[in-house]
Amino acid sequence: MSHKIKLLIAYDGTAYSGWQIQNLKGIGPDPISIQGELNKALKTFLGVPVKTVGAGRTDAGVHAEGQVVHFTSEEPVDPYRLLRSLNGLLPDDIRVKEVEQVEDAFHALYSAKRKVYHYHLTLSQVQEPFSRRYAYHVRKKIDVELLRQAASWLVGTHDFTSFANHGGSHHHAVRTLYRVEVVEEKGGVRLEFEGNGFLYKMVRNLTGLLLEVASGKLPVQAMSSIFAAKDRRKAPRAVPPHGLFLVHVGYDS
Amino acid sequence: MSHKIKLLIAYDGTAYSGWQIQNLKGIGPDPISIQGELNKALKTFLGVPVKTVGAGRTDAGVHAEGQVVHFTSEEPVDPYRLLRSLNGLLPDDIRVKEVEQVEDAFHALYSAKRKVYHYHLTLSQVQEPFSRRYAYHVRKKIDVELLRQAASWLVGTHDFTSFANHGGSHHHAVRTLYRVEVVEEKGGVRLEFEGNGFLYKMVRNLTGLLLEVASGKLPVQAMSSIFAAKDRRKAPRAVPPHGLFLVHVGYDS
Repeated sequence: MSHKIKLLIAYDGTAYSGWQIQNLKGIGPDPISIQGELNKALKTFLGVPVKTVGAGRTDAGVHAEGQVVHFTSEEPVDPYRLLRSLNGLLPDDIRVKEVEQVEDAFHALYSAKRKVYHYHLTLSQVQEPFSRRYAYHVRKKIDVELLRQAASWLVGTHDFTSFANHGGSHHHAVRTLYRVEVVEEKGGVRLEFEGNGFLYKMVRNLTGLLLEVASGKLPVQAMSSIFAAKDRRKAPRAVPPHGLFLVHVGYDS
Repeated sequence: MSHKIKLLIAYDGTAYSGWQIQNLKGIGPDPISIQGELNKALKTFLGVPVKTVGAGRTDAGVHAEGQVVHFTSEEPVDPYRLLRSLNGLLPDDIRVKEVEQVEDAFHALYSAKRKVYHYHLTLSQVQEPFSRRYAYHVRKKIDVELLRQAASWLVGTHDFTSFANHGGSHHHAVRTLYRVEVVEEKGGVRLEFEGNGFLYKMVRNLTGLLLEVASGKLPVQAMSSIFAAKDRRKAPRAVPPHGLFLVHVGYDS
């Protein structure tokens, strides 16, 4: 009998090539990924290699407070022992926060119903050194009221082709954002995005758009035509990865 | 005519040997200090070396949100240009937050009337990776109510000889703590110490004592006899540097 295990993990993405293992097949050394480190620790604990599946494929430099991962073990696993052992084996920028056994049907990626991402912006003239790896320092003058207007415009169901870094338009680019909020915090604001799914680089691309509006370079009215263009090249540049956090993945249960 | 300049600076102490320049006179390479980096940047900007004086000699690994520094320049200095230039020249873990010209009598160290230090404690089972350089992860069970009792016991004027890392008792070890508060924050608490002056390692030594009481190893009643002993060896061990922040230095003005 096999046992399906769900992990809740957090990581500082600064030192990693992203969540996912990349196999360069000898073209060069494989870059160091969070999944690679986790697989190594799991193999040490379990004695056999396992296949891990993550809920979100966070990019190089992107952080997670609440990444969800599953794997299947042939042997029963004591959740508390696994948590303690993994945190002993993993580097200190990756932490396992919760371990639980779940039903066989659970799938970290396919069972996910909603996700929450936060993007942190420093808006003060000088950035606190403690935020330098965790918030993007915006040097343009930002109107927080305009930022709120632009953020609330995003709520709803849209075709996000203009905000996905991949090929042309197709129906798979339709997603629903339930909530896009601007929350004030020390030194600036964070943007909270909650939706039923996110395309590759979507949050960073949308944040780039919001900053263009909030700095007065683009009127709020221009947002709909950028969406309508369904063309990544019509939308502003993405913001850098280090302000982005995968905060929560929601499942029905 | 000379010009006295006051700087407000913040730094992530992780990579440094502490605030103060140490000259090993050829015994080994001089360790990298925050003051050394600041002096280098000032010399580049001003064209001549200057002597800097800091309000608090923070140790290796200790951080600052509000260190105050002064120096004297023979040439007039434009505060805004200096701030911009220093932040361009300094490594990104040291930031200059404010620059102002002050009266000649001002002295960053001797004019200081009070200081505020914060010590951050993670009390949850697993520490968020983002806090690993900025909060001490306490693995013992802590009673926050006992922690508050012990903290408030510290308020007032005491001889802190048992909490200073240097020679024997003398009247210079008498200091007044105006406020020692326990403030809940994400993942744990921070201790806020405000006083008229602090001895070498005093906050870290006091926090070590507070944790012994709050973990039930030492009754609150034992605190007075440890103070009365005036002997560093009678008091518990210091906590590590990375939870400590110099937050504010107050002057009469």
